[in-house]
Amino acid sequence: MIGRLNHVAIAVKDLDAGARIYRDTLGATLSPPLPQPEHGVTVIFVELPNSKIELLEPLGEGSPITAFLERNPGGGIHHVCYEVDDILAARDRLVAQGARILGSGEPKIGAHGKPVLFLHPKDFLGTLVELEQV
Amino acid sequence: MIGRLNHVAIAVKDLDAGARIYRDTLGATLSPPLPQPEHGVTVIFVELPNSKIELLEPLGEGSPITAFLERNPGGGIHHVCYEVDDILAARDRLVAQGARILGSGEPKIGAHGKPVLFLHPKDFLGTLVELEQV
Repeated sequence: MIGRLNHVAIAVKDLDAGARIYRDTLGATLSPPLPQPEHGVTVIFVELPNSKIELLEPLGEGSPITAFLERNPGGGIHHVCYEVDDILAARDRLVAQGARILGSGEPKIGAHGKPVLFLHPKDFLGTLVELEQV
Repeated sequence: MIGRLNHVAIAVKDLDAGARIYRDTLGATLSPPLPQPEHGVTVIFVELPNSKIELLEPLGEGSPITAFLERNPGGGIHHVCYEVDDILAARDRLVAQGARILGSGEPKIGAHGKPVLFLHPKDFLGTLVELEQV
């Protein structure tokens, strides 16, 4: 069911500092910062040949990564995102197997303008998993 | 400097349970379990079209993932691995910029039979980073 590893998201308190590490220290190619107020984050994409890393900084009140950064003040891997062809079919398959979908269970339009869902980390090896329909 | 995202490693206490989640629930293609006593882990590779997930279970005494699993008993993302062309040049560039290499600082032969180094999570956004020469 799952397809490509779309991205790995790393939450950071300071996006400029995070960008310096990936651009200057690790020598990767980065996008400019992209504020996404509807998702409560500002994002920089680290473009790798086969996938990407998303550096996420909280934006505004109630950012979904604030609590994570309180637990992990130095930053850390926040989630992984796998691509699926049909997000409703994927959801129904997961629910039928007892896995929990976060939130309402209905897909939302994610950071790339495509439908996404998040799966409960306790059902997926302690890993927050995003599914994105591509 | 960094190239492809070679893999994301997820540490689990129970590799069979981890395999069931990725094979049965998420519908991915998995390798058979591969014991790697010299690395203190048994590995299952989850083959994705563009990268892979490595499920790691502790093997033997003093496994390098034991402490992580004590802190994260439900499992969790342990590290990410980026490919580099020249691991000694990469190391020297990182050290010159003040980044810390774990262990002796000399590459070891990793789980794929290629030279690897691990970078200090505190210097890389709370993320344990493996570099692998390909």
